[in-house]
Amino acid sequence: MAKSKYEYVKQFEKDDSLIPNTWLVIRLDGHGFHKFSDRHQFEKPNDHRALDLMNKCAEAVMIEIHDIILAYGQSDEYSFILKKESNLFNRRSAKIVSTIVSLFTSNYVFHWKTYFPDKELQYPPSFDGRAVQYPSNNNLRDYLSWRQADCHINNLYNTCFWALVHSGKTENEAENALRGTISSDKNELLHSSFDINYNNLPEMYRKGSVLIRKEANLMTLNQKGVEVIRKKKVVTTSHVDIIHDKFWKENPELNVSV
Amino acid sequence: MAKSKYEYVKQFEKDDSLIPNTWLVIRLDGHGFHKFSDRHQFEKPNDHRALDLMNKCAEAVMIEIHDIILAYGQSDEYSFILKKESNLFNRRSAKIVSTIVSLFTSNYVFHWKTYFPDKELQYPPSFDGRAVQYPSNNNLRDYLSWRQADCHINNLYNTCFWALVHSGKTENEAENALRGTISSDKNELLHSSFDINYNNLPEMYRKGSVLIRKEANLMTLNQKGVEVIRKKKVVTTSHVDIIHDKFWKENPELNVSV
Amino acid sequence: MAKSKYEYVKQFEKDDSLIPNTWLVIRLDGHGFHKFSDRHQFEKPNDHRALDLMNKCAEAVMIEIHDIILAYGQSDEYSFILKKESNLFNRRSAKIVSTIVSLFTSNYVFHWKTYFPDKELQYPPSFDGRAVQYPSNNNLRDYLSWRQADCHINNLYNTCFWALVHSGKTENEAENALRGTISSDKNELLHSSFDINYNNLPEMYRKGSVLIRKEANLMTLNQKGVEVIRKKKVVTTSHVDIIHDKFWKENPELNVSV
Amino acid sequence: MAKSKYEYVKQFEKDDSLIPNTWLVIRLDGHGFHKFSDRHQFEKPNDHRALDLMNKCAEAVMIEIHDIILAYGQSDEYSFILKKESNLFNRRSAKIVSTIVSLFTSNYVFHWKTYFPDKELQYPPSFDGRAVQYPSNNNLRDYLSWRQADCHINNLYNTCFWALVHSGKTENEAENALRGTISSDKNELLHSSFDINYNNLPEMYRKGSVLIRKEANLMTLNQKGVEVIRKKKVVTTSHVDIIHDKFWKENPELNVSV
Repeated sequence: MAKSKYEYVKQFEKDDSLIPNTWLVIRLDGHGFHKFSDRHQFEKPNDHRALDLMNKCAEAVMIEIHDIILAYGQSDEYSFILKKESNLFNRRSAKIVSTIVSLFTSNYVFHWKTYFPDKELQYPPSFDGRAVQYPSNNNLRDYLSWRQADCHINNLYNTCFWALVHSGKTENEAENALRGTISSDKNELLHSSFDINYNNLPEMYRKGSVLIRKEANLMTLNQKGVEVIRKKKVVTTSHVDIIHDKFWKENPELNVSV
Repeated sequence: MAKSKYEYVKQFEKDDSLIPNTWLVIRLDGHGFHKFSDRHQFEKPNDHRALDLMNKCAEAVMIEIHDIILAYGQSDEYSFILKKESNLFNRRSAKIVSTIVSLFTSNYVFHWKTYFPDKELQYPPSFDGRAVQYPSNNNLRDYLSWRQADCHINNLYNTCFWALVHSGKTENEAENALRGTISSDKNELLHSSFDINYNNLPEMYRKGSVLIRKEANLMTLNQKGVEVIRKKKVVTTSHVDIIHDKFWKENPELNVSV
Repeated sequence: MAKSKYEYVKQFEKDDSLIPNTWLVIRLDGHGFHKFSDRHQFEKPNDHRALDLMNKCAEAVMIEIHDIILAYGQSDEYSFILKKESNLFNRRSAKIVSTIVSLFTSNYVFHWKTYFPDKELQYPPSFDGRAVQYPSNNNLRDYLSWRQADCHINNLYNTCFWALVHSGKTENEAENALRGTISSDKNELLHSSFDINYNNLPEMYRKGSVLIRKEANLMTLNQKGVEVIRKKKVVTTSHVDIIHDKFWKENPELNVSV
Repeated sequence: MAKSKYEYVKQFEKDDSLIPNTWLVIRLDGHGFHKFSDRHQFEKPNDHRALDLMNKCAEAVMIEIHDIILAYGQSDEYSFILKKESNLFNRRSAKIVSTIVSLFTSNYVFHWKTYFPDKELQYPPSFDGRAVQYPSNNNLRDYLSWRQADCHINNLYNTCFWALVHSGKTENEAENALRGTISSDKNELLHSSFDINYNNLPEMYRKGSVLIRKEANLMTLNQKGVEVIRKKKVVTTSHVDIIHDKFWKENPELNVSV
């Protein structure tokens, strides 16, 4: 069979491996999730089940890809941090990005019915992804701060917007009411008009979700059938500040000291 | 909010756009599909339902991404050909690859139950992808010939291998029996030992699947309720030779003349 | 010696090879040549000796690098076209660009005294370079047309500008006089104010320089001392239109038919 | 003029900018310097004038390109280190590499006659270059250690090789005599056969050349004609160990602490 005659076409594949010793960030974003959330009547401004499902998918990705040390998610996006030393797929960019996006997507459809037992999935959703390299711990910290600051800004805005809409305004009127306001204006609006203390809203909405691996005590039976405690790293989810130093000091095993 | 302070991190994202005026091939591959096919007891050497599901996913990708002019699939891989002039996502490589892989994966899980109504999906499968640029029509034709030749070689081998195994040999014995054989040996083995004429096996197994857009007559009702025929491009699947010129002459609208 | 301990640093070198089967264009530009031409009192708008020196350097590059099929130069820039099939330095971009730029620069300084025997080189000039891939013959033709059209536009402008300046205007006045004019205005200005017929100016100024390899008859002595004619490819320089088809039809061995 | 019609070809130029916040190393190598040193009868194993000329060129590059903090040279190669924060040419790889290679080459030809007053330059030499990114100070230190270790290994070998050749051996015999020897063997050979104490050889041969910027006291005249001392950063050349910490501790302004 004239296989060899065609094999030269493999030479057109370029090496897209990322340089060693940089933090790799893989960020994925929902594709057309405005429409997707409408079609599935997600609650506004935040749908708890939809966010839980996102977190479940991120956890599944972390369980599969051991080199991910931290994942951060908000809204319809998720960032996965691969450790500097990672040699996953020889650091080939397309392979890393496509595998993580595929795993995430697959889990999203697979686990949908668990999080939305009363709501049929109307059509298959999709995500896109990209890889970014960060040379220093400071750069990585600033990347994560950027995403968490973005989460806060968007959530404060959306909380106001949907409070106005739910109170009877049109979407246009709500938009106009918020134009030019700063954070303190929005906090005040929530407080005075809707009796909402923004800081009492669920932390998942205000801070997003942070997944890391922590050592946990697992109860198992040994060979003699006696209960024993075994230490194991498990993926844990929390909704904490990752902009300030506290989180990083409490989790020194992440090796992101600055 | 100190958003701007962090936004410099966007500068670390590199432009990965592919050059204009080249054929773009996005090939995706099943990740760990040996295990996946075992766990779901796929029939060997070919599981008709699994291949139909792959084709369904490819069709869904083509319906979503209009710039794909042809898709070719075999086993657990699929190649999508974007036309030279495509400006999809400004030809950004990671965005194109991740979106196509995500759409494919999403459809795979979404449509699983249609193709395997009696078999629960055990865990979420995943695929990886890559993008390759081909400057000339000849290069593109050779790429597709490479994949279809690969399909033939693998399928002939697998047909022999599983015939031997189903006849009682161990996998090791089957492997040894086939070592060093050429195509004619394998055809003869199938014929003499198993009364199989390889060329009579289903074309989907021997040639893979080719998806293109063809004009079709669609029957619809007009505003007065009268049946009318409307022409529309629809994605069609066939299992034909794409190595020789015949296919390309019959489908001049693909613009791959050499 | 602990050599191996450090050798891991080679992994940080990325493969920057260009894809096969594309035309490679290496364009180099003079760095700070406005100052350089001032310091060496180049004649304005065109200094014949400076252009001849550029052409000499380009010829030297072509004699050294056999895969270059054509070079086009104007002002302080030069473009070198490597044939599609070239495997020079395994098509590694930085290696190709740096080598060509280095050869060109080296020849520039080396041959300076031949072209400017009465003018000492004041300081070492430098050039920068870049590589661009063009998939089709049309793209390559359009690239060269772009540069030659640019040559014409700049030269027409500069001819007017320096005619005005040489006639006593300041550079500012000349600039203002030309603002908003189109080609026909400039031709008219040259004709009416300076009695210059633009089309009679040297072709090297108006069209730039085109270097290709042509077969020539070389007179040599054979072993018996008899004069014989041997055919050999030599680099030839002309100043012809390369925008229209004529040039390409007359030089079919370039393989740039469209 | 149909300029715009062709300008689309600029889209084929890809952004090749390097990521921010990494050390950039530009290494250039002599092209065909074995032949070049033969043709110019360089002294073996080291020609002091040739190395001095290389150092002069590196100094000229550093004077021109302010973001280079250190240069290291040995034999016919030179490495230039751009500081992490450098935004030279927007960190575009081809532009940086080609400019540095061009400047170096230009100076080589320009200054040749100063270093070889009695030897005509026979033909224009050339160099090639590449850019490599190093994320951490450790990586950069290891890169430089790699080059200096290489210098030592090659110089020890070459010193032995040429001592043998100068003593009457053929090049083949010298090669065979050295095959399989380790450093201590070579040191012993030099000592016992040629009465050479390797460690007494010039440091430039054994360690290469290190160029950095140091503050110096420059004597100048002020407006009143009185001599005053002004501090200025000047490029200094030395031949010191850069593998161990001493050098880096003595030059903290380089900011390469580990």
